[in-house]
Amino acid sequence: MQADLICVGNELLTGLIENSNTGFLARRLWSAGISVREACVVADNEQAIRVALEKALEESDLVILTGGLGPTDDDLTREAVAGALGLPLVLNQGWLKKMEQYFRNRGIKMPDNNRKQALVIKGSTLLENQRGTAPGALMESQGKTIVMLPGPPHELQMIFKQQVLPYLAANNQTGLTAVKTLKCIGIGESMLEEKIKALGKWELPPISYVSRGFEVDLQIKGSGEGEAASVSIAKAEQLLRSVLGDYIYGSNDDTLVSLAAELLTAKKMTLALAESCSGGLLSDLITDFPGSSKFYRGGLIAYNSVVKSDLLGVSKELLEKEGVVSAATALAMAAGIKKLLKADIAAGITGVAGPESDSAGKPVGLVCIAVLGPGISENRQLNLGGGRRAIKERSAQIALDMLRKILVKL
Amino acid sequence: MQADLICVGNELLTGLIENSNTGFLARRLWSAGISVREACVVADNEQAIRVALEKALEESDLVILTGGLGPTDDDLTREAVAGALGLPLVLNQGWLKKMEQYFRNRGIKMPDNNRKQALVIKGSTLLENQRGTAPGALMESQGKTIVMLPGPPHELQMIFKQQVLPYLAANNQTGLTAVKTLKCIGIGESMLEEKIKALGKWELPPISYVSRGFEVDLQIKGSGEGEAASVSIAKAEQLLRSVLGDYIYGSNDDTLVSLAAELLTAKKMTLALAESCSGGLLSDLITDFPGSSKFYRGGLIAYNSVVKSDLLGVSKELLEKEGVVSAATALAMAAGIKKLLKADIAAGITGVAGPESDSAGKPVGLVCIAVLGPGISENRQLNLGGGRRAIKERSAQIALDMLRKILVKL
Repeated sequence: MQADLICVGNELLTGLIENSNTGFLARRLWSAGISVREACVVADNEQAIRVALEKALEESDLVILTGGLGPTDDDLTREAVAGALGLPLVLNQGWLKKMEQYFRNRGIKMPDNNRKQALVIKGSTLLENQRGTAPGALMESQGKTIVMLPGPPHELQMIFKQQVLPYLAANNQTGLTAVKTLKCIGIGESMLEEKIKALGKWELPPISYVSRGFEVDLQIKGSGEGEAASVSIAKAEQLLRSVLGDYIYGSNDDTLVSLAAELLTAKKMTLALAESCSGGLLSDLITDFPGSSKFYRGGLIAYNSVVKSDLLGVSKELLEKEGVVSAATALAMAAGIKKLLKADIAAGITGVAGPESDSAGKPVGLVCIAVLGPGISENRQLNLGGGRRAIKERSAQIALDMLRKILVKL
Repeated sequence: MQADLICVGNELLTGLIENSNTGFLARRLWSAGISVREACVVADNEQAIRVALEKALEESDLVILTGGLGPTDDDLTREAVAGALGLPLVLNQGWLKKMEQYFRNRGIKMPDNNRKQALVIKGSTLLENQRGTAPGALMESQGKTIVMLPGPPHELQMIFKQQVLPYLAANNQTGLTAVKTLKCIGIGESMLEEKIKALGKWELPPISYVSRGFEVDLQIKGSGEGEAASVSIAKAEQLLRSVLGDYIYGSNDDTLVSLAAELLTAKKMTLALAESCSGGLLSDLITDFPGSSKFYRGGLIAYNSVVKSDLLGVSKELLEKEGVVSAATALAMAAGIKKLLKADIAAGITGVAGPESDSAGKPVGLVCIAVLGPGISENRQLNLGGGRRAIKERSAQIALDMLRKILVKL
């Protein structure tokens, strides 16, 4: 099956907002065996949307439009699709009531222009939006499927996963794309490729590489249909694991956080964090995991070194002798927060995120991380580049990887 | 002037790689007074590229193609453009020599397939690539300008800034776009529009709305040329400020964090945070600001309620009587961290991020925030929707807005 994507919005054509919806939908469709023929971005203009839709319907069986479902005058996707199909818009009383309730819950009277969001194309199925006031819609027309989704990514993603994909599957519109992703950390893309090439002639399925900071996703696409594809993936995975070993930390939907969270939950252990240069990012990542309150005791962002000594009990002598950014300080921070928050395992991160070196002259990008569990500890010193945000992100990635490795041993 | 963008690449249509080139080019063109009519992504397929190019040339004066300039068999942009224009490809000896040198410098013999990258369309200008082997190209054809750029963002961006923009400017194809963005918080997009509509007939410049959680950017595009455009923006801004007042927190590059940071720095005050449901996100946002170490003492993520009582000194009676998620607890958390970290001003955030209600039955999305400064305090209770991440983000946005408002008064 083949799909066309149409993203609507002036803000995408002026670059005011990055378009992440095309990537998300393309990935999800592709792994459901639906290939995207073309993806376009058009303006908030009824005629432009209509022309794009008509062209897409000539080419593909499935057309997904995103954006332009808001309450304001420049939200025109509903009108354009209705016009192209020659169908009227009708008021959906059920959604109107939900919207009124939504505003009531927030103690606000619903503005009149939100009524527009309860207008649906006759014959279409409303896709409920649990995260906003713009519902999606889905309809069949002359053997083609048309889907409209709201533009905000967290709304679009939830509706797509919970309502659109199941619909497509139930209507036999999805196919099989046997794909497996191996998730790697601690090795660069080019070195990965070198190791894989050293395996010799590659008669196995094609592999693609996508890197994010210190992580690289290795995606293997199975050759052949059904069983044959699975077998080819299994063979490739075995070979890859033989050369990459510990660089592979998981597969498919695994993340560094999800694996650490599962291990903590399974082992009934609690976690505490003492962050300096990462500034709370690691804590933020961990608390994005639903259910993290079961194992996460909390953390301290010890941005000022006085906080490190006063609260975490890192001695002033150690800070002076070894430096605020040192392996010893990272370990003392981990020990301090472990005791303070009565946790089973703790991590300490200290480093120089920049833009300037620290007062002791330690260079930007120097980061020390310690993870401490019962009877076990691990220390790493890193020289990171890429600017302030990248240093924070990479510190957090490495700390999570160290945490996972220690948890496996416990 | 109007432009069309065509991004070529299977990897963009499977979502393996996020397409950041459209956003980059759109932003740069728009601020050079060139509006993008449509942006599309097409496959590595000669016919698909050709069809997209022919359509774009019908509509726009400038067409920019990205990607498909590599050395491999599936790189077909050169061939497709040459085919569409009916022009032959010729070998550029100069670029061939540069490529050979490039490989020699790396101690490698140039692979044969790289020769292909020295093929240029007859009559086109080669755009040198200092960061890779794929050169870009620029040509005029029947009054239209066609530009081809390599896909890797850091190559594309350098060529675009150093060679394409100057060419367009020298040929009088760029214009002036006078734009001002007013940054709003605490008011939804629909209510904003209602207030603006209540101003009566809008004879002022066009406005566009972009929302990010609780923030909305109001972008005013000046009407007319030069001075006239600035005057029209100033008029519009005055009117908008008269109805939106305090909802406008800043303009252009201001962010909630940058304004709070500037106020803290100017007033020589220090900040501390006690976060629960926001899980460290607020601290992460603040420490993204370069120079935050000057005013940020640190923070505590009190994810477990024992941490709230033990470390922040929130009394067990208060937690039991008022609840962990309550205005009183938020204030006690702020007071606790302010004292603990010896800061001048502090914020406390407690709430239910979900997916489940808390043990006391407080609903998902209930968030209480307190900000406490010398002789001043502010409390807010919110009912937030949108899922775990959105609740965290909105809590942080509101806390920053409260912090800024208190700092202004101090």
